[in-house]
Amino acid sequence: MNFNRPATYTDYYELTMAQGYFNSGLHERTAIFDYFFREIPFDGGYVIYTGLNELLETLNGLRFRDDELAFLKKEGFDSDFIDYLATFQFKGTIHSAREGEVIFPREPVLRIEGGLIEAQIIETLVLNILNFQSLIATKASRIRYAAGDRIALDFGLRRAQGLGGVHASRASIIGGLDGTSNVFAAFKYDLPADGTMAHSWVQSFNDELSAFRAFTNEFPDKSVLLVDTYDTLQSGVPNAITVAKELEEKGYRLKGIRLDSGDLAYFARQARNMLDEAGLEYVKIAASNQLDEYIISSLISQKAPIDVFGIGTRLVTGQDSPALDGVYKLSKIGDEPTLKISENVEKITLPGKKKIYRYLNPDGSFYGDAILMDDEEQVQLIHHPFYSTQKSSVADLEYEPLLIEVMKNGNLTYNLPTVREIAKYSKKRLERMNDEHKRFNNPHIYKVGISTRLLKMRDTMVHEIKEQI
Amino acid sequence: MNFNRPATYTDYYELTMAQGYFNSGLHERTAIFDYFFREIPFDGGYVIYTGLNELLETLNGLRFRDDELAFLKKEGFDSDFIDYLATFQFKGTIHSAREGEVIFPREPVLRIEGGLIEAQIIETLVLNILNFQSLIATKASRIRYAAGDRIALDFGLRRAQGLGGVHASRASIIGGLDGTSNVFAAFKYDLPADGTMAHSWVQSFNDELSAFRAFTNEFPDKSVLLVDTYDTLQSGVPNAITVAKELEEKGYRLKGIRLDSGDLAYFARQARNMLDEAGLEYVKIAASNQLDEYIISSLISQKAPIDVFGIGTRLVTGQDSPALDGVYKLSKIGDEPTLKISENVEKITLPGKKKIYRYLNPDGSFYGDAILMDDEEQVQLIHHPFYSTQKSSVADLEYEPLLIEVMKNGNLTYNLPTVREIAKYSKKRLERMNDEHKRFNNPHIYKVGISTRLLKMRDTMVHEIKEQI
Repeated sequence: MNFNRPATYTDYYELTMAQGYFNSGLHERTAIFDYFFREIPFDGGYVIYTGLNELLETLNGLRFRDDELAFLKKEGFDSDFIDYLATFQFKGTIHSAREGEVIFPREPVLRIEGGLIEAQIIETLVLNILNFQSLIATKASRIRYAAGDRIALDFGLRRAQGLGGVHASRASIIGGLDGTSNVFAAFKYDLPADGTMAHSWVQSFNDELSAFRAFTNEFPDKSVLLVDTYDTLQSGVPNAITVAKELEEKGYRLKGIRLDSGDLAYFARQARNMLDEAGLEYVKIAASNQLDEYIISSLISQKAPIDVFGIGTRLVTGQDSPALDGVYKLSKIGDEPTLKISENVEKITLPGKKKIYRYLNPDGSFYGDAILMDDEEQVQLIHHPFYSTQKSSVADLEYEPLLIEVMKNGNLTYNLPTVREIAKYSKKRLERMNDEHKRFNNPHIYKVGISTRLLKMRDTMVHEIKEQI
Repeated sequence: MNFNRPATYTDYYELTMAQGYFNSGLHERTAIFDYFFREIPFDGGYVIYTGLNELLETLNGLRFRDDELAFLKKEGFDSDFIDYLATFQFKGTIHSAREGEVIFPREPVLRIEGGLIEAQIIETLVLNILNFQSLIATKASRIRYAAGDRIALDFGLRRAQGLGGVHASRASIIGGLDGTSNVFAAFKYDLPADGTMAHSWVQSFNDELSAFRAFTNEFPDKSVLLVDTYDTLQSGVPNAITVAKELEEKGYRLKGIRLDSGDLAYFARQARNMLDEAGLEYVKIAASNQLDEYIISSLISQKAPIDVFGIGTRLVTGQDSPALDGVYKLSKIGDEPTLKISENVEKITLPGKKKIYRYLNPDGSFYGDAILMDDEEQVQLIHHPFYSTQKSSVADLEYEPLLIEVMKNGNLTYNLPTVREIAKYSKKRLERMNDEHKRFNNPHIYKVGISTRLLKMRDTMVHEIKEQI
């Protein structure tokens, strides 16, 4: 019931390359790999970095089991190499941004130093964990932004991508949602759990009124009645009002009703009027059905009196951009910085051991980030990564280093925060980012520059490689 | 390392409703729930039904563990109800289409009969498993259709939605792909595993030629060399040719090269020419980079000489429709058929205990399907589910029942086939579906009708409910 990933949770070529390194005697060389993404999903302005806890926990216990090794044997891997894998443990050192951090394209937010094999084998694991959880936390934070201070809940497990649903719910809370319907995720990660009722409840009784009475009997102070099984305004809402009045006589208050079909703005307004006319101003209206940040924004701009949003499919699958394009690239091998050239200039990687500084405006809000060589101190200028004529002075600005050590030689050197702590951290960080980076249409591009030294090193290396070809 | 889902892998409201049923004494009533979907993803013509094995295995071992029960206690569930959950086992009876079957909208391809609580609690589990795996198998089968007899491989784990990647790879093979890079899935489900090399391999050596030599040294008869680390046509392909010639002298043949960037049609043609001119007609060309069924079709129509397609993100996330909208609806409670009305006529559910017949054309190809009452025999006519003027005669056609018993009173009554067997079955079934249902643009809609008795029962019930409101 723990969903830890086994050591074979990797791409086949990681293991063929590992055997190659092993047999070439290269596996003793040290390597540095960077995790970064290139494109912000949802046409947005930022990403919420998520999944670090799970990655570190998985790395901590990463072993090849006997049955996995037997499988690799059958696949034709060498006996010597399999013996090596039998004692494999991840002994690398990791620097990372904090989980929940607001991050931007091309920033090496996770830096892994270790032996070439161990750092290579975990590529797929790193990408699979961080790409997905960061995607969903980002989507959730957009939904939170749209919903303002109304309640927003994750209802997505049934449409989630299989077991991905467990971490989607975790990431939803980190991104700012108030609770989840996912009981297992709530249990595993101590998340606030919540839910209402299904149509099948109503259908299980002879009529809707009996169904509502039975439910409120059971949960007199926390019932949210689903009102659209037969007819929302003719049947569901009137029956809910009847039951609410009966509850009042017993000293209870109906918590809410839920709309799950039809025009939510229209039905919410009609239902609100009916409830208010019955003196039930306190009964909340929840709504669900294909919601996302755009529909929530639209409902709010229409002044739809909805108090609680239940968001499913479009949250937990990141529907309009269902993958973050994070990559894991070798930046140093032994003592040599290295890079990958590409036909596409934007895909040329940044060589060497690097770090990230976040520069601050005088009011504490985020001004922009710089990618520097790890041994650089304060820099004067940051350069656009491709357009060298574009640069900004950061000489007078305060800054925060973004990367912290989280693992040293395979040992955790970092207290893993709880999900609620991560969510709180993320919220605080987002508050320091100006609104123009958060808007949905053409968000202002956050400045991410590279240091003069990094720029020169990269350009020299590209030049040298092109000369050789 | 087994990724079985625990009993709390469910929505919160399933458990609140279950407690309600328990305390109302309704949990002894029997219920029938149907699983079906409404909209075909990818604007396609069919869905490949996938995930049954895993669902049955999970149901078979479904238990609430002590720590889960303690969590529910803390959440405020009743002690009596928690005692009930402590001994909970799924004891229901399930009829289902075979895994790998070609299925269509509104068909109740899985029918669950059991006590109201057990049948309700598993809703989320059923949906989470079947929706996702069916989605990905369907996407894979479209990719297979586009790729024809060229090799198509799943390379998606790094961009998959977290742990969803395990079942995405399984579903990809069921949908018709030839292999996967996902080592764990290959191990767990006995799938063909495959892979090439990464840019980091090339970067780990002083130059590309040394990197290629080291790799072919290690895997002389199965190397696929990645040729775009520095410059595909100026460096990668010439170096691959040099190495292939060296291999020939040792009596080996280079297996292939892989293109991973740039215009794949152009680079494939140039690379093919260069290889052919060097007498290396046998060296295969593999291509990857944001492929899907549309790009593969386009490459093939451009006669790009690509022998192997590696498909990642767009396969394993079902990128353009990342969720199948499958639902789980109560159709009978005790002896009473039941349905859910909706503002939207297409969302009115089909009441009662039902089955599916598949009617066949004289040549054995699929003519159309009918949804019938379970105790109906051969029918004469099938009706469009909403437009009652549209009907077809099936009196003279052969038919196959689609549902088989797979679980009785909680016990498996079905030998779970292997993934390779399921893939073979699915292939055979797809071959019997006419091509016009498989095309990507406006596929011909496959006929799914309902029997006269079912039609009348539904319409009478809808009428009666509307009268009461």
